[in-house]
Amino acid sequence: MGSNPAGRANHLDLRPVSNLPISRFPVPRLEDLPEDVRARILAVQEKSGFVPNVFLALAHRPAEFRAFFAYHDALMDKPGGLTKAEREMIVVATSGANNCQYCVVAHGAILRVRAKNPLLADQVATNYRKADITPRQKAMLDFAMQVALASATVGEADLAALREQGFADEDIWDIAAIAAFFALSNRMANVTSMRPNDEFYLMGRVAK
Amino acid sequence: MGSNPAGRANHLDLRPVSNLPISRFPVPRLEDLPEDVRARILAVQEKSGFVPNVFLALAHRPAEFRAFFAYHDALMDKPGGLTKAEREMIVVATSGANNCQYCVVAHGAILRVRAKNPLLADQVATNYRKADITPRQKAMLDFAMQVALASATVGEADLAALREQGFADEDIWDIAAIAAFFALSNRMANVTSMRPNDEFYLMGRVAK
Amino acid sequence: MGSNPAGRANHLDLRPVSNLPISRFPVPRLEDLPEDVRARILAVQEKSGFVPNVFLALAHRPAEFRAFFAYHDALMDKPGGLTKAEREMIVVATSGANNCQYCVVAHGAILRVRAKNPLLADQVATNYRKADITPRQKAMLDFAMQVALASATVGEADLAALREQGFADEDIWDIAAIAAFFALSNRMANVTSMRPNDEFYLMGRVAK
Amino acid sequence: MGSNPAGRANHLDLRPVSNLPISRFPVPRLEDLPEDVRARILAVQEKSGFVPNVFLALAHRPAEFRAFFAYHDALMDKPGGLTKAEREMIVVATSGANNCQYCVVAHGAILRVRAKNPLLADQVATNYRKADITPRQKAMLDFAMQVALASATVGEADLAALREQGFADEDIWDIAAIAAFFALSNRMANVTSMRPNDEFYLMGRVAK
Amino acid sequence: MGSNPAGRANHLDLRPVSNLPISRFPVPRLEDLPEDVRARILAVQEKSGFVPNVFLALAHRPAEFRAFFAYHDALMDKPGGLTKAEREMIVVATSGANNCQYCVVAHGAILRVRAKNPLLADQVATNYRKADITPRQKAMLDFAMQVALASATVGEADLAALREQGFADEDIWDIAAIAAFFALSNRMANVTSMRPNDEFYLMGRVAK
Amino acid sequence: MGSNPAGRANHLDLRPVSNLPISRFPVPRLEDLPEDVRARILAVQEKSGFVPNVFLALAHRPAEFRAFFAYHDALMDKPGGLTKAEREMIVVATSGANNCQYCVVAHGAILRVRAKNPLLADQVATNYRKADITPRQKAMLDFAMQVALASATVGEADLAALREQGFADEDIWDIAAIAAFFALSNRMANVTSMRPNDEFYLMGRVAK
Repeated sequence: MGSNPAGRANHLDLRPVSNLPISRFPVPRLEDLPEDVRARILAVQEKSGFVPNVFLALAHRPAEFRAFFAYHDALMDKPGGLTKAEREMIVVATSGANNCQYCVVAHGAILRVRAKNPLLADQVATNYRKADITPRQKAMLDFAMQVALASATVGEADLAALREQGFADEDIWDIAAIAAFFALSNRMANVTSMRPNDEFYLMGRVAK
Repeated sequence: MGSNPAGRANHLDLRPVSNLPISRFPVPRLEDLPEDVRARILAVQEKSGFVPNVFLALAHRPAEFRAFFAYHDALMDKPGGLTKAEREMIVVATSGANNCQYCVVAHGAILRVRAKNPLLADQVATNYRKADITPRQKAMLDFAMQVALASATVGEADLAALREQGFADEDIWDIAAIAAFFALSNRMANVTSMRPNDEFYLMGRVAK
Repeated sequence: MGSNPAGRANHLDLRPVSNLPISRFPVPRLEDLPEDVRARILAVQEKSGFVPNVFLALAHRPAEFRAFFAYHDALMDKPGGLTKAEREMIVVATSGANNCQYCVVAHGAILRVRAKNPLLADQVATNYRKADITPRQKAMLDFAMQVALASATVGEADLAALREQGFADEDIWDIAAIAAFFALSNRMANVTSMRPNDEFYLMGRVAK
Repeated sequence: MGSNPAGRANHLDLRPVSNLPISRFPVPRLEDLPEDVRARILAVQEKSGFVPNVFLALAHRPAEFRAFFAYHDALMDKPGGLTKAEREMIVVATSGANNCQYCVVAHGAILRVRAKNPLLADQVATNYRKADITPRQKAMLDFAMQVALASATVGEADLAALREQGFADEDIWDIAAIAAFFALSNRMANVTSMRPNDEFYLMGRVAK
Repeated sequence: MGSNPAGRANHLDLRPVSNLPISRFPVPRLEDLPEDVRARILAVQEKSGFVPNVFLALAHRPAEFRAFFAYHDALMDKPGGLTKAEREMIVVATSGANNCQYCVVAHGAILRVRAKNPLLADQVATNYRKADITPRQKAMLDFAMQVALASATVGEADLAALREQGFADEDIWDIAAIAAFFALSNRMANVTSMRPNDEFYLMGRVAK
Repeated sequence: MGSNPAGRANHLDLRPVSNLPISRFPVPRLEDLPEDVRARILAVQEKSGFVPNVFLALAHRPAEFRAFFAYHDALMDKPGGLTKAEREMIVVATSGANNCQYCVVAHGAILRVRAKNPLLADQVATNYRKADITPRQKAMLDFAMQVALASATVGEADLAALREQGFADEDIWDIAAIAAFFALSNRMANVTSMRPNDEFYLMGRVAK
């Protein structure tokens, strides 16, 4: 995966390794996409060595594609009180609760990479309460799961519990917003029957 | 609401009529906002005669604000097989299931206006199965509720049921995407304790 | 609604404004009803200016009609520690949880009138936790929802929490009994597909 | 139980055999009750040889007592397409689903007596799907459970399924109304912590 | 039941009193069983006067039969901090929650015998929170129900609550293991549609 | 893993790689175990190159240990209509539904090995409906999930659906029994907070 010859970035092999459909809906050809969408896809291929299927499946709707990734980047790549690994923990835990195969597999891979921990993602996906995380991280995930599964019950006491663990109000917004954004993402992946790329399964599991 | 003197658009009265907080998180002052965010807010005030609180509450995070409304517009203002009233039905039904006060009240108002029907929103919010809608619209809402509440169970048979009612695959994406986007929206409104503007409650209930 | 010429009370127009059925079961003609049932119906028409459909739908079974309204009056019109508006809050919150369109719309109207508050009913119907109510009223509704949704779990600690908010034991019985009675009422309305009168939707929303 | 000397009916022994409280709320003394309520209680004692605790617990509120038993009698003692045993099956199955100890024990006893079957009540209380009942009775209980647990989902197809089993529409009303009435009854018994009389446990289990 | 002439133990009457099937799957003839399985069945008949149907239904698979009863005996007949009646309470409460007719009826009978209490089993099966048990026993059943219904949520605080009630860690293992074993047993009984023997219904209800 | 020098089998390194506790309860030393339990543990170490923690955690109770593994072997190692990989699919799918970290990780590894497929386990654990399996396998898992989550609802129609997919009645018993056995296993793993061995995470993911 590390070896990604620059010469490869000018074309895109849309066939998944396993030759199975990656979406229930039409997947556009790279050359038919608006320039900015194509550029974003080529950039992620350049960086990762492959194109995560979420980019291809959502490119079917360029306007939604742009908003989706703008939202994603605003939440996942920003500075703040949560580490990047912690943000991915939120994704993996809530996606597990929503039975979203794409997000558990793809963000599980990213979590392993971000946390430099080959075990954490599988633990968090199945039962974060028993994962190798800190009490502060467990409180973070308790709240994220409440947002994912029963957001109408969120009250002042829930925010107070997070503040006791040292979370700033901006961190609380981040936790909530990530859980909320992946509520959207999980539903789109489930409805489109989005297929995780084969590459994700092994990513971050072995030292390079 | 009809009377909206143009001269008023240059300032913004952030105090809600009822003087109660509109968000658990800080609400920015208009003058502190980036130009594009401020312009969007002034435009909606110009058009509606007031600023729906979702604009003010989410403006706390301009990058997320931009992505949120870009996504919203991509789904709610586009042409396609679903009428604007039908899109609002999806919002109201799924927001009711998620117990989202802001979205039920605000989009209930928009549904009344779009459908030119003062009864429909309250019916759909409580139990769409008994609302004054067509069998096709009921099938649409059955699917939207499945996406909102149990998206992992969506299978080919569910899409087939929609096609039998005459929905094109692009319509099915629209239904799913609206339900998915408001899964996000409901969670943000619930966590921020977003307050519906007083203006929404009566909107569309009486002939002007 | 205010104008209800006395001369009108001698006949009854059973056709709903929208000409849609008000029950899945037969709706009796006024002249076929026992004298006491007819008198009750004419009295409510005299007072309200229209006949709420629950009277017509349940009149199909006069013995049950009598017991139903006797029970209703024993709970809703009695003196005690709960105001009439508070009793209606219990009805609206639990009927929302049971997705009962008739009760949310009809008692939502009565709540607006009793509380002289045009916003409260829609707030309570969707999520009472965020409604403009006092902490004491929130505790009341927490308990009412427990009775509605998980009555087997009610224990001494739940009653103690209400007493701490100043509720007398007779008030606690009232809260429980109203939630229990509308458990019945919601189910009958849902099974009969009882239609809320068009008049309810606007009632209490505008100053006369 | 059979031996009930007439001379005993003039006084009432309110102490339960086990000397444990029969309600969380005050239980009135017979002499303090309104004449009609006392008469009803003495009549049931005369007939049954003991006073079921529901009469004593609910007599705390005479107006509600009257409405409750009027409703009960209107549903349980009427002629119609359902046998008395079938009506009790509905009570036992739905009360089991609501975890109502009083109603399962007391109406389980009545079901054994009505059906002249010592096994049926325990079967129906735990899982009616495996009870010694006919397919028609299973359809009846399927519907009763839907009314008890998810009444908002009742639609025309559910009624059609009952009609296919030979139920008249009046029978369908009966099934729904019994399930609805015991939704109320179960909640009152759960909140008052109503204790089943010791006598019920053995009733109908052995030939006299 | 006490009178079980030794001469009867050499043959086995597989016909249930009610002549209804005791399993959806084939029930082996005694003479076709491996010697150890047959011996176990004859021994229980000798002791109880009849063969509980679970022995016959599970004998269809001798290897599973042996493991099942070895596990059962390891948990239910061992010494320790829980009485035999308390172990049966766990079985009855969790089997009620799993709607397992066989286990509620059969172990309800054993609970009545073990506790020398004719009321306890029916109370525990429907709602253990209101049964005639000690606070320590209620804490035991709270935990058993958590294991039965939501074991992934078990955390240190849950164990601490049991220790406060005086339970040793070995007792906690016992509670959990009994609830876990009957999670298996309930599922097998439900899938095989295992029929409780008629004898169980009356057992322990009347003094001999 | 393949290289397991015979000389290593005579001692046992109980320390998990990550030095974290493998059970909330005491873990016995190998030398303190009964001979047969120790032999079983040494045999599995010999075969696998490490001792799965379930052996050590359950060895705390030798009698239960013996019954547990006898049951396990009777279900998982037997011949029959289900392949070994299919049996593991049942384990992984139902353990995912029960949020059992140990069983998902450990049996996920075994599934990868048995199916010679590095992707299948993660797919099945999160949402078997979208896994790379046949319609027959999907029907098998539909039923296994019903047994795991709602066994009281299993009826003749559910068995008929399996027979239509070509399953023999003995296969149906196998599916049910595996789901039932892991209902037990999941609960023990959750309560003991059983830790998956680090070795499992990578097993079956890479060609040797």
